[in-house]
Amino acid sequence: MILTVTLNAALDITYQVPALTPHASHRVTEVTERPGGKGLNVARVLAALGHDVTVTGLAGGDTGRTLRNRLAHEPRVTDTLLPVAGATRRTIAVVDATTGDTTQLNEPGPQVSPAEWAAFQSAYEELLRDASAVALCGSLPPGVPVGAYAVLVRAARAAKIPVLLDTSGEPLRRGVAARPDIVKPNSDELAELTGSHEPVQATRDARRRGAHTVVASLGAEGLLAVTPDGTWQATPPSRVRGNPTGAGDSAVAGLLSGLVEALPWPERLARSIALSAATVASPVAGEFDAAAYEELLGRVVVTGAESAA
Amino acid sequence: MILTVTLNAALDITYQVPALTPHASHRVTEVTERPGGKGLNVARVLAALGHDVTVTGLAGGDTGRTLRNRLAHEPRVTDTLLPVAGATRRTIAVVDATTGDTTQLNEPGPQVSPAEWAAFQSAYEELLRDASAVALCGSLPPGVPVGAYAVLVRAARAAKIPVLLDTSGEPLRRGVAARPDIVKPNSDELAELTGSHEPVQATRDARRRGAHTVVASLGAEGLLAVTPDGTWQATPPSRVRGNPTGAGDSAVAGLLSGLVEALPWPERLARSIALSAATVASPVAGEFDAAAYEELLGRVVVTGAESAA
Repeated sequence: MILTVTLNAALDITYQVPALTPHASHRVTEVTERPGGKGLNVARVLAALGHDVTVTGLAGGDTGRTLRNRLAHEPRVTDTLLPVAGATRRTIAVVDATTGDTTQLNEPGPQVSPAEWAAFQSAYEELLRDASAVALCGSLPPGVPVGAYAVLVRAARAAKIPVLLDTSGEPLRRGVAARPDIVKPNSDELAELTGSHEPVQATRDARRRGAHTVVASLGAEGLLAVTPDGTWQATPPSRVRGNPTGAGDSAVAGLLSGLVEALPWPERLARSIALSAATVASPVAGEFDAAAYEELLGRVVVTGAESAA
Repeated sequence: MILTVTLNAALDITYQVPALTPHASHRVTEVTERPGGKGLNVARVLAALGHDVTVTGLAGGDTGRTLRNRLAHEPRVTDTLLPVAGATRRTIAVVDATTGDTTQLNEPGPQVSPAEWAAFQSAYEELLRDASAVALCGSLPPGVPVGAYAVLVRAARAAKIPVLLDTSGEPLRRGVAARPDIVKPNSDELAELTGSHEPVQATRDARRRGAHTVVASLGAEGLLAVTPDGTWQATPPSRVRGNPTGAGDSAVAGLLSGLVEALPWPERLARSIALSAATVASPVAGEFDAAAYEELLGRVVVTGAESAA
């Protein structure tokens, strides 16, 4: 199975309102709820691709209960989230029906105790035994040390399990130094990590900092992958209109599934780009349109070359 | 005990954000949660005044569980909310730290089945037996018939329990026709009910429609009460600055406590105004500042006279 880690899981709530007006009162016309947090989104896409996935991380409180009840209904997803005393955070996406724009409100997450974090590390090391790959995804809740991902990367490498890291800021900086197999920063995260806004230079710099492979997601420009085997750029066939929520998580699922299927890098990247674009094209935030994925997959352009041996 | 009914209870959530910008993403810096819905707010103020209160209405889902767990910690409040299959709604108040303004997002509430509504009516009739007065407060959740308050008013009157109604729109119109002892509309609700924006005329018209007493809350102008015993106007001593959330519910608690203590109308109105102003003055939305209440109480001006016998 593929293991995904979501330390700061979320109950993702979407509100439809006729129009969002600051300082006014709004009747919400439609409420939808689903399990969220990057690792859970990655798991959902991996499951849709036919992979068995185990999700772990931390969840607690009534919001955590709601989240886990919903996870129980997702096929091919096994829930091994660890209970914590604090309540799982909510994220609220307020969709303005007039403009189609979304305003996002993200709670910080539960306060995690040192004992809870220690218990998680033990559980994670157990889970690694049966994993073919692991993805470490998203922000850290309060109380989890900023070097948490570095610890989890080292444990995966000690267990010889390929590990992908998708986070930002200081947790990314520390995590990269622990030498993960893959990091997948977006342009902003890459610039924050390296100080450079020039993608090729920044991607190379991120590798020098410790990552074996850097796959930078450059929005409409696609993906730039600098790997030990070579450098490739994958570009979507056309500009896709829609909601970009979850597009990065779908790209991670593409990379991870390609890794465990031992696909060559150009195919992994094509899959990631097609999944990502099919997620933007889907009417439901964070889900991908299967027909659009199949159609796009054949049209992704991948350029680049293997390194001279 | 005093009974308060909250058919559309809510988990009131307050988010502090540095500044609310439509279509941007926000990190919430502080999250607070408390039981909400008008009847629960009224109960909290009654309990603070020393009255034993029983709260009833409908609650369900994980949000309902959170709400009930918190209610269990409130002194002098007995929870007899009936469980429903749907989830209790959330309300989100987003407070902009830069301007101090609040943007409100209110979920509609759970879908209530005919069987759940029937079960509530039976439970309500049982609870009336031990009640000295009852307040029917707030909006109706989906599925509860629009004439619900008329049914509940009639049951209270049949049981000879004084009944106060505080709602709006069609549920108010139907409820008034069932001849409640007191209705407490604000200016907008009164104008919607009667078609008149002139308070004295609109208040008289609301009485003709069935309410024995109408106490209209006119914001900074105070309260206008037209009762079978006379007409009074109560005015706050000075304009109070602050958050008006819950001020109307505090006024209801003032009226209801004055009723069961058999205070003369001028004293009931003075208490209502002072509680209402002390709620606006409180730093916490929906709570009243006890010192401000005591200070304001002696300074409320009540004018008017008893009717000629």
